[in-house]
Amino acid sequence: MQSQIVEALRPLVRGQIRVVGASRTDAGVHALGQVVSVESPEPLVPGPVMAALNARLPRDMRVLAARSVPGDFDARRAARLKRYGYLLGTNRVPSPFLRGFAWHVGRALDAKAMRDAASVLRGKHDFSAFCAAPGRARDPVCTVRAMRIVARGDRIGVLMSADAFLHHMMRNVVGTLVEVGLGRHPSGWVAEVLAGRDRRAAGPTAPPEGLYLLRVLYPWSVFHGGRHLGRNAGAPGPEA
Amino acid sequence: MQSQIVEALRPLVRGQIRVVGASRTDAGVHALGQVVSVESPEPLVPGPVMAALNARLPRDMRVLAARSVPGDFDARRAARLKRYGYLLGTNRVPSPFLRGFAWHVGRALDAKAMRDAASVLRGKHDFSAFCAAPGRARDPVCTVRAMRIVARGDRIGVLMSADAFLHHMMRNVVGTLVEVGLGRHPSGWVAEVLAGRDRRAAGPTAPPEGLYLLRVLYPWSVFHGGRHLGRNAGAPGPEA
Repeated sequence: MQSQIVEALRPLVRGQIRVVGASRTDAGVHALGQVVSVESPEPLVPGPVMAALNARLPRDMRVLAARSVPGDFDARRAARLKRYGYLLGTNRVPSPFLRGFAWHVGRALDAKAMRDAASVLRGKHDFSAFCAAPGRARDPVCTVRAMRIVARGDRIGVLMSADAFLHHMMRNVVGTLVEVGLGRHPSGWVAEVLAGRDRRAAGPTAPPEGLYLLRVLYPWSVFHGGRHLGRNAGAPGPEA
Repeated sequence: MQSQIVEALRPLVRGQIRVVGASRTDAGVHALGQVVSVESPEPLVPGPVMAALNARLPRDMRVLAARSVPGDFDARRAARLKRYGYLLGTNRVPSPFLRGFAWHVGRALDAKAMRDAASVLRGKHDFSAFCAAPGRARDPVCTVRAMRIVARGDRIGVLMSADAFLHHMMRNVVGTLVEVGLGRHPSGWVAEVLAGRDRRAAGPTAPPEGLYLLRVLYPWSVFHGGRHLGRNAGAPGPEA
């Protein structure tokens, strides 16, 4: 994504462009609300930059809004909260409309058991059990602000908001909750997995195609002329 | 679609297979609830046929249910009501998620004006004004049972149920309603177009990618052992 934005901007800007996305999403992952900061040696005017990007970017990427920010804004470091959604298909026959846009589990899931299991993830915890690379992880403590399981017909959505996401954290949480939904483990198992801080005890990593970066939230000051982003040292994690 | 089903069935059935879809949809049109009747010289068992079709059909087609019906059942002729939906995108920037799945109008539409205009289409009317090929049309009189315009954020859905749809009727109705939504014609214009029965007076044909066949309804007797489908002479139209 970053390289495509840099490529699309190149005809507009002389010199080095620096592009930072709030979240580095893996191939196959979707984003409805990615935020990207662009730093260039020349001043950029938001309207024309947005129009030029939308004319040049591949058709599966579109810029919905653009604005000027203080010079030290970094979309990743300044993020305070990210919301991810994950879509599961439980119908036996995979829907062609969800191909590439959901994890086709293909079996009924016990949404209530998943909800019970997920509730222990709310709040501030060490999420090492759900981190793909605990060794290279920075601070494994994240604060989960919202955790919801929404069932609608043959689809189940998992919604999670946190101040930071470790590597593959959302996909590992979903893979673990699906184990509970399938009845392979009781609800209480997720609390044990969380407490154990051992990635090998958790469920498999859910495939990327069900994952959506929904929203990234920033402090009010970023978009309202606050001087700068002093308290950004503890950077939110890069990947979900 | 019919040819793909015939191909997928060929290894299962010796002899001539006859496949009839309730609606002949154009390329690019979607279906969530297409109904197809399959006639073969040998008896077919629904469960295995469904499994075999889902294993052999292209990935953008899936069979959600299969059952045995009386021998004279014809999915097109027996249909009593069809429901179509049409999805419009009004956001200036086209959503990558709707590419191929909506008509990106890219401008605000006046949903209330569209709703006022559409209300005159309810009931029994001669729909020649919305028929792509009025010359070759069979009975141009259709009864519209439901007509709704639903606005949600930057998307507008047009929902229409009728006992029959003439060639491109749904797409021509939508193209005409969009003219009203864009303010190019007042709401009352659609009543004039309908009364005039002249295709050239109506709006353009909306593109196929926004159209969805949602549902096909049959008389209770078809699926509950009613003797046969005697009153099917007045066949519903083939295309929307």
